[in-house]
Amino acid sequence: VAVIGPADAAAPEELASAQEVGRLLAKAGAVVVCGGRGGVMEAVCRGARSADGLTLGILPGPDRSEANPFVEVAVPTGLGEARNALVVRSADAVVAIGGAYGTLSEIAFALKDGTPVVGLRTWELARGGRPDTGIVRAESAEEAVRTALDLARK
Amino acid sequence: VAVIGPADAAAPEELASAQEVGRLLAKAGAVVVCGGRGGVMEAVCRGARSADGLTLGILPGPDRSEANPFVEVAVPTGLGEARNALVVRSADAVVAIGGAYGTLSEIAFALKDGTPVVGLRTWELARGGRPDTGIVRAESAEEAVRTALDLARK
Amino acid sequence: VAVIGPADAAAPEELASAQEVGRLLAKAGAVVVCGGRGGVMEAVCRGARSADGLTLGILPGPDRSEANPFVEVAVPTGLGEARNALVVRSADAVVAIGGAYGTLSEIAFALKDGTPVVGLRTWELARGGRPDTGIVRAESAEEAVRTALDLARK
Amino acid sequence: VAVIGPADAAAPEELASAQEVGRLLAKAGAVVVCGGRGGVMEAVCRGARSADGLTLGILPGPDRSEANPFVEVAVPTGLGEARNALVVRSADAVVAIGGAYGTLSEIAFALKDGTPVVGLRTWELARGGRPDTGIVRAESAEEAVRTALDLARK
Repeated sequence: VAVIGPADAAAPEELASAQEVGRLLAKAGAVVVCGGRGGVMEAVCRGARSADGLTLGILPGPDRSEANPFVEVAVPTGLGEARNALVVRSADAVVAIGGAYGTLSEIAFALKDGTPVVGLRTWELARGGRPDTGIVRAESAEEAVRTALDLARK
Repeated sequence: VAVIGPADAAAPEELASAQEVGRLLAKAGAVVVCGGRGGVMEAVCRGARSADGLTLGILPGPDRSEANPFVEVAVPTGLGEARNALVVRSADAVVAIGGAYGTLSEIAFALKDGTPVVGLRTWELARGGRPDTGIVRAESAEEAVRTALDLARK
Repeated sequence: VAVIGPADAAAPEELASAQEVGRLLAKAGAVVVCGGRGGVMEAVCRGARSADGLTLGILPGPDRSEANPFVEVAVPTGLGEARNALVVRSADAVVAIGGAYGTLSEIAFALKDGTPVVGLRTWELARGGRPDTGIVRAESAEEAVRTALDLARK
Repeated sequence: VAVIGPADAAAPEELASAQEVGRLLAKAGAVVVCGGRGGVMEAVCRGARSADGLTLGILPGPDRSEANPFVEVAVPTGLGEARNALVVRSADAVVAIGGAYGTLSEIAFALKDGTPVVGLRTWELARGGRPDTGIVRAESAEEAVRTALDLARK
């Protein structure tokens, strides 16, 4: 039961990490929740489906056709970017991979809700020159999944 | 792939119909989407689970604990009643059973979107004394499911 | 402080009523809230502005350009039809004029919230052949405004 | 026409800046949009009202009573934190003062939409060690307002 909140344009290594994160989460029995679209979201779902995992895609638009082909249960919200709040609310932990401003909004919502966020090559946050310690850093897909599952169980 | 959008307080025969509708939809292979809470929503999910169906509950509050025990995939939206728009958007057809004003808002959203609505002891709508023909009436759970599946396929 | 929640396509007499309702509400010092678009919504805002009233338009799309020219404060929600829940929540009473399914969803949300709804040539609701008494009927713009203001003060 | 999206708990100098920003925006004829609650949001509204400005508060909860006393037009959304997307959408530019994770989500939504963000003692963002240049920094309330109004006009 973990969320992946990434962006559309993604580096090849981010896509590879995402696919591996999806596969490992599914193997561990977690439902994979995401924004349901392309790029990192599609890679995560592809990985999860390769291990017979359940994938839930919470879409910005009003119709299911924008879901990537590896989304099993699609929720077309019609809420636009406000749907980002719903993606993280459906999860006990969030793994953030890469990411543009949409991902940043999901990280912010998760941290605000007290949902743990594990980051893999993602945003670094600071205030007044002091780094914010909200995001737990991981160096690999394996470490990200292990940490997220640990934090989700707490 | 059909949605049931009913209310909290429900008559015993509405609950029985809801459970039977859930069971028949699951048997036909449809994902059962609903508001995820008690009453008719719980009866529908119980019926669907009895036939090993997949149940999706789109919740008004911010947390999964308010889902009934037969919801398999819960989406806690935190949107309050505005989540009613999402319940019907996730479906290709809607079966409305009984219902108070919350159900009426779901019927209205579905008809506005052009999603077919099959009604079982539910609201009757008119304007200027002329009945509105938007809701397709059914007399039994079997008829409601058959009609909804037919309309969903169009 | 009253809301008008109507539709796009409207009969000339509905537009005339809407403009008069807007004017009378503004004259009484009420803020006029609406969905911000054309048809009855535009007529209400035009009426309110003709009496120097404040008009608030809660828009479905993500940008202010879809507001009619008589909306003074626009809130572009980007929520699509889910914004209907917000229109009625911003008001102490609702006047419904004519209306298609979008208006019906607003009526449903208002009645669900316990916000009084005054209807002028709008939906008639029934269950099991018995009329629902939720909507208070009015025969003229004057009566609708007087009733809505009375109910809003309670 | 500028938005201020800050947090609840705020340092005294943040509150003083917020009040001054509100006053200067109102003096320049801009509508001040904010989240409508306490802390920096209340300070901004107090400042704007002191210069006879129009204040719009887009509230997370379902009812107007949570608005601070300086909000003139309140929109109770009932959407919870998802309303943050609406706060920035209603504006042509955003001034961010201080801020916790809620403010961070608003910054992210604004940058995603391409709405300019001026920051006063607020979040610093980086990826891969490289600072993100999305937020335009200001050192004083005067500079923040001048920059925001310039950017809003573009």
